[in-house]
Amino acid sequence: MRAEIISVGTELLLGQIVDTNAAFLSRELAALGIDLYHRTTVGDNPERLRQAVEDALSRAELVITIGGLGPTTDDLTKEVVAQVLGLELVLDQPSLARMEAYFRQLGRKMTENNYKQAFIPAGGQALPNLHGTAPGVAVRWKERLVVCLPGPSHELEPMFRDYVRPLLQTGQNGVIFSRVLKISGRGESAVAEEIADLLAAQTNPTIAPLASPGEVKLRLTARAASTAAAEELITGMEARIRERLGLAVFGVDDETLEEVVVRLLAGRRETLAVAESCTGGLLAGQLTEVPGASAVFERGVVTYSNRSKVELLGVPEEVINTYGAVSAEVARSMAAGIREQAGTDWGIGITGIAGPGGGTAEKPVGLVYVGLEGPAVSLVKKLNFPGSRQIVRRRTVQTALDLLRLELLTKHR
Amino acid sequence: MRAEIISVGTELLLGQIVDTNAAFLSRELAALGIDLYHRTTVGDNPERLRQAVEDALSRAELVITIGGLGPTTDDLTKEVVAQVLGLELVLDQPSLARMEAYFRQLGRKMTENNYKQAFIPAGGQALPNLHGTAPGVAVRWKERLVVCLPGPSHELEPMFRDYVRPLLQTGQNGVIFSRVLKISGRGESAVAEEIADLLAAQTNPTIAPLASPGEVKLRLTARAASTAAAEELITGMEARIRERLGLAVFGVDDETLEEVVVRLLAGRRETLAVAESCTGGLLAGQLTEVPGASAVFERGVVTYSNRSKVELLGVPEEVINTYGAVSAEVARSMAAGIREQAGTDWGIGITGIAGPGGGTAEKPVGLVYVGLEGPAVSLVKKLNFPGSRQIVRRRTVQTALDLLRLELLTKHR
Repeated sequence: MRAEIISVGTELLLGQIVDTNAAFLSRELAALGIDLYHRTTVGDNPERLRQAVEDALSRAELVITIGGLGPTTDDLTKEVVAQVLGLELVLDQPSLARMEAYFRQLGRKMTENNYKQAFIPAGGQALPNLHGTAPGVAVRWKERLVVCLPGPSHELEPMFRDYVRPLLQTGQNGVIFSRVLKISGRGESAVAEEIADLLAAQTNPTIAPLASPGEVKLRLTARAASTAAAEELITGMEARIRERLGLAVFGVDDETLEEVVVRLLAGRRETLAVAESCTGGLLAGQLTEVPGASAVFERGVVTYSNRSKVELLGVPEEVINTYGAVSAEVARSMAAGIREQAGTDWGIGITGIAGPGGGTAEKPVGLVYVGLEGPAVSLVKKLNFPGSRQIVRRRTVQTALDLLRLELLTKHR
Repeated sequence: MRAEIISVGTELLLGQIVDTNAAFLSRELAALGIDLYHRTTVGDNPERLRQAVEDALSRAELVITIGGLGPTTDDLTKEVVAQVLGLELVLDQPSLARMEAYFRQLGRKMTENNYKQAFIPAGGQALPNLHGTAPGVAVRWKERLVVCLPGPSHELEPMFRDYVRPLLQTGQNGVIFSRVLKISGRGESAVAEEIADLLAAQTNPTIAPLASPGEVKLRLTARAASTAAAEELITGMEARIRERLGLAVFGVDDETLEEVVVRLLAGRRETLAVAESCTGGLLAGQLTEVPGASAVFERGVVTYSNRSKVELLGVPEEVINTYGAVSAEVARSMAAGIREQAGTDWGIGITGIAGPGGGTAEKPVGLVYVGLEGPAVSLVKKLNFPGSRQIVRRRTVQTALDLLRLELLTKHR
């Protein structure tokens, strides 16, 4: 079955709200194995809405509209749909009764303009709204199904789950199952080349690369008769990709790099402390985003001034004077200093030039040193990131986390 | 001018990502006074993308595509647009050079598949990508303008601001001038009530409230013959709003709370050091996001363990034992400790329960104490935020920054 989603609302076209409803419904349809090829957004304009509904009906067997079911004059979705389908709007008594009960419970008087919400296209099925007033509608028309849902997410989501999903499950065969592999330390293009043959040959599952700062995602999506069968297809392809990329695959689905690092440290009952200069607390902030980080993260310092590097971390002044605050020696000394001071298994030290100012010919903006000190490990990684201050700082944090992750995975078991 | 936005990407139709780019561009177009009547989303499918581009060109003078500019084989937007416009794809040397430099700086080898990103429709203008590899494109064609932007938001947003917005501002007759007032310490509904009459009477400028965690934005948009005239309309309305909201208006346009705080401190030649527990470095990270923060931010510590609070900040163990680590006394002691240790004018101390675990009946998740120590100031604010660990941490940072801002603005001049 092919589906289309039409989001209705001028507030969407003004960018005043983000259309999370469309994403929610897209996920739900995918899980049901229903193909979604188009999404359209129009404002509260009957002519353009009519055109959008007609276009959708010409391309799809399932058309879902979002929004425009409310009591105000700019809520026109049901009216337009009824017009396109050539159906009258008729009063739905149960919906009216439910609305009256709703207002009674609130101890409020139901205003006149609410009545229009109880009207639905003749022959349609009203979808009860347990979290608001406007009922939804499902209408079968010429081998097609048209569903109108309310705009507020807390009304739309339960209405879909309770009334629309059951309608769609009948007569659907097959499901879609999807898994995301998250990769660090490589660019999108490098990943794509390493699995070029798999990308070229992809059918089921499909493989969609997606890049975000410091990481690349590969989304595997399989279609099969059952979730188990789809999952099996995914697992097979995942294994082939992991063969190619090895440890560069750091996580699955929503797992973050910091979650992986905290999990690995906790599993080894090891602890971490960090000393940051150019990242200014972002690394500590990202690590402590993980619930339960306190079990492995002992402390952090943001030694922004040279004085603080000396006072808090015992970085020798002559090291700073000889090599400069942004140097491998200082990064190493910061990592060793915080590790010793905190008495943790691991210490990370970061110093660099995030920009926009402060760069020189031999020490340009984007130059960063990351020091890592641990059981039988003492290393410094020199990095050079292009881009804005923000990007340099974000990518430095990702790289520092990945450096520790690889040490934890590969050595000192 | 009429515009349409076409979002390209199967991941959108699978609901695996929410289309925040479309909302961003919608806001920007609205601010420019450009009418947006349709938004369409299609997958990585050349045939449906071609149809979408043709439909958009038949209805609008400005067509903006999002996504599909990357190096992989499913990135087809430029190819399809060139085909629809009947243009060849030609190599853009500056884009190629920029990409090569990007990879050189990263110390990575530029892989073969990257080259396709340097090709643009003949006669088009390449839009430099300062935060990634894929350049954007702007092509004028039959009184129309077609703009292709990359999918990653951190690439799309600066590219739009730096290169597309200027293109669109020229050729608009009459100008639209827009200013955003940023408000802290109040909810959206409270702000709306305080200016209810202004909202009700809005015509030119219009007033659009927009809420985001910890702050409320009011976007004033005026249309006039000249920028000067439009700016005058804005300034008049801004004055009336500031009369109502006073110091709650902390900034204008893209100005962030941390930028304001850094600017105020720099203006007074005063310095700051911070000690964080539950926010785990986010406050320091946010302050050091500001270029030149080093002039005012001396150091920060993330004292996640009790031991680190004692060792690094000199918080008396008996205070922790008597009142608990999450208490007004500990927050005050942390602020005083970091201020004294760093020898700064101001010290901030934060302790709280971000959750999801760790809450009790008398100290629930969301309970946070912020201590502020400064010249002739010593105060502790008790907060209680609802919501997730992330929200509690974010709002704590916003509140701490605002607390210092108000002290800097109102006292000790």
